[in-house]
Amino acid sequence: MKLTQAQVAEFERDGYLFFPGLFTPEEIKVLLDEVPNLYAQARPENIREKGSDAVRTNFAAHMYSRPFARLARHPRMVEPAEQIFGEPVYMHQFKINGKMAFEGDLWQWHQDYGTWKNDDLMPAARAMNVAIFLDAVNEFNGPLMFIPGSHTLGVIDAEHDVTTTSYPLWTITNDTIRKLVERGGIVAPKGPAGSMILFHSCLVHASTANLSPWNRVSVYLSLCAVSNHIRRFKRPEYIAHRDFTPIQCLPDDCLLQDYDVPLPWQDGTPASALQALASA
Amino acid sequence: MKLTQAQVAEFERDGYLFFPGLFTPEEIKVLLDEVPNLYAQARPENIREKGSDAVRTNFAAHMYSRPFARLARHPRMVEPAEQIFGEPVYMHQFKINGKMAFEGDLWQWHQDYGTWKNDDLMPAARAMNVAIFLDAVNEFNGPLMFIPGSHTLGVIDAEHDVTTTSYPLWTITNDTIRKLVERGGIVAPKGPAGSMILFHSCLVHASTANLSPWNRVSVYLSLCAVSNHIRRFKRPEYIAHRDFTPIQCLPDDCLLQDYDVPLPWQDGTPASALQALASA
Repeated sequence: MKLTQAQVAEFERDGYLFFPGLFTPEEIKVLLDEVPNLYAQARPENIREKGSDAVRTNFAAHMYSRPFARLARHPRMVEPAEQIFGEPVYMHQFKINGKMAFEGDLWQWHQDYGTWKNDDLMPAARAMNVAIFLDAVNEFNGPLMFIPGSHTLGVIDAEHDVTTTSYPLWTITNDTIRKLVERGGIVAPKGPAGSMILFHSCLVHASTANLSPWNRVSVYLSLCAVSNHIRRFKRPEYIAHRDFTPIQCLPDDCLLQDYDVPLPWQDGTPASALQALASA
Repeated sequence: MKLTQAQVAEFERDGYLFFPGLFTPEEIKVLLDEVPNLYAQARPENIREKGSDAVRTNFAAHMYSRPFARLARHPRMVEPAEQIFGEPVYMHQFKINGKMAFEGDLWQWHQDYGTWKNDDLMPAARAMNVAIFLDAVNEFNGPLMFIPGSHTLGVIDAEHDVTTTSYPLWTITNDTIRKLVERGGIVAPKGPAGSMILFHSCLVHASTANLSPWNRVSVYLSLCAVSNHIRRFKRPEYIAHRDFTPIQCLPDDCLLQDYDVPLPWQDGTPASALQALASA
């Protein structure tokens, strides 16, 4: 998986690249079939929606689920990030966002890197989000919305919103969003299950609630350049990982073949991963 | 404004008709310019969003605002309803829904006639919604979503939801919505300001929150066949009108010319209109 020069230029201009149907239905089935098991578990890694049992986001499945541990080493997701940063990457965050039919709540306008900088002391925006759709995304099930070009402004002032949804988030003010949208508009990539989006960690994004009867489960890998690892361990390790070992990719067929992967949290999350640590 | 036979057949099959750009920008400006004045008033007719000053819906502006009083008599909105029912219509409900930028909350899946039957004892579904867009509607500002064909099932069981938003609503269960969408899908008509939608009072509809910086103000006339007038005055009159006089249309240029219209609530809402009455 190698980006062309045109793709790199597009990424630098718009802040994202969209690859419709990059993974096959067979590959996606391996992942999607595992999601109900993960969401059914009473683990701290499952964050549920406000006033509902539906899972809003599941963290760190690559530490305790075989299919997702393979996905976390997939060259189609990892190599483009290595290419853009020109160095190896490690897994800063791994999540499976539910946005379940009828229950999936909104995500306010935000940048991911704002949180990583403020909470985790990640030195620079040399980390990349890679999303894959486990369900088809359409205009009705709360697609991810981007403001193209907004990544070029770096970290934008944000306010900590701890009330709107079940998950606290550093969110960008309405006045700023208005200006950014005047400049760049809004786009919402839609496509079949298996589609992939690469997006810059400063790209401003949001998504509405899902009122439709269609789930919109997506996996997000946040891949950080190894030299840019976080400096503070304030958040639990299942949210912001502390192992900066470069990812070693598996072969391209790793979702369909039985490659061995470590599952260190298979029997439970270690106590240390639930706690803040004084220093990195 | 006369519907063709093909349009009538389409309405009967799908439950709605969409007329993009039916009103001109000049006509819409007359209405939109009046909205901030209406929304700024401290009247009981302004229902505000949960936890916000933004107006969710304004009722009965045709009783105290000259431009909207003219709109309420507009042949492009009234004549199609008269044609479909084959008799004169009266104004059952008149509202201007804000769905304001950033603040506009969702409307859950519901049918309007369910409420009119249960609360107002309207005998049959011989009432029609006519919406016009005062702002352009796009995929990002919470467009109205319909389940085509759902009107053919008549009144569907509903539950009274008094918690989700600031406005209590008889809402349809997720299981039913799932079945209806399997059968009819979802559509969301989008278009410029001035577009009009006619939709059946049993058509199941909803809309998501507006996270965009674009307002999505729309006017909804609910026109009821005169012989089908409501039999109970449980709700305030500004929500469910008690005057069954047939609407007399003004000429087609009534938004741009200075036709005289009565404004009986211009100096305030009469006390009787705020109260339930024992009988119709």
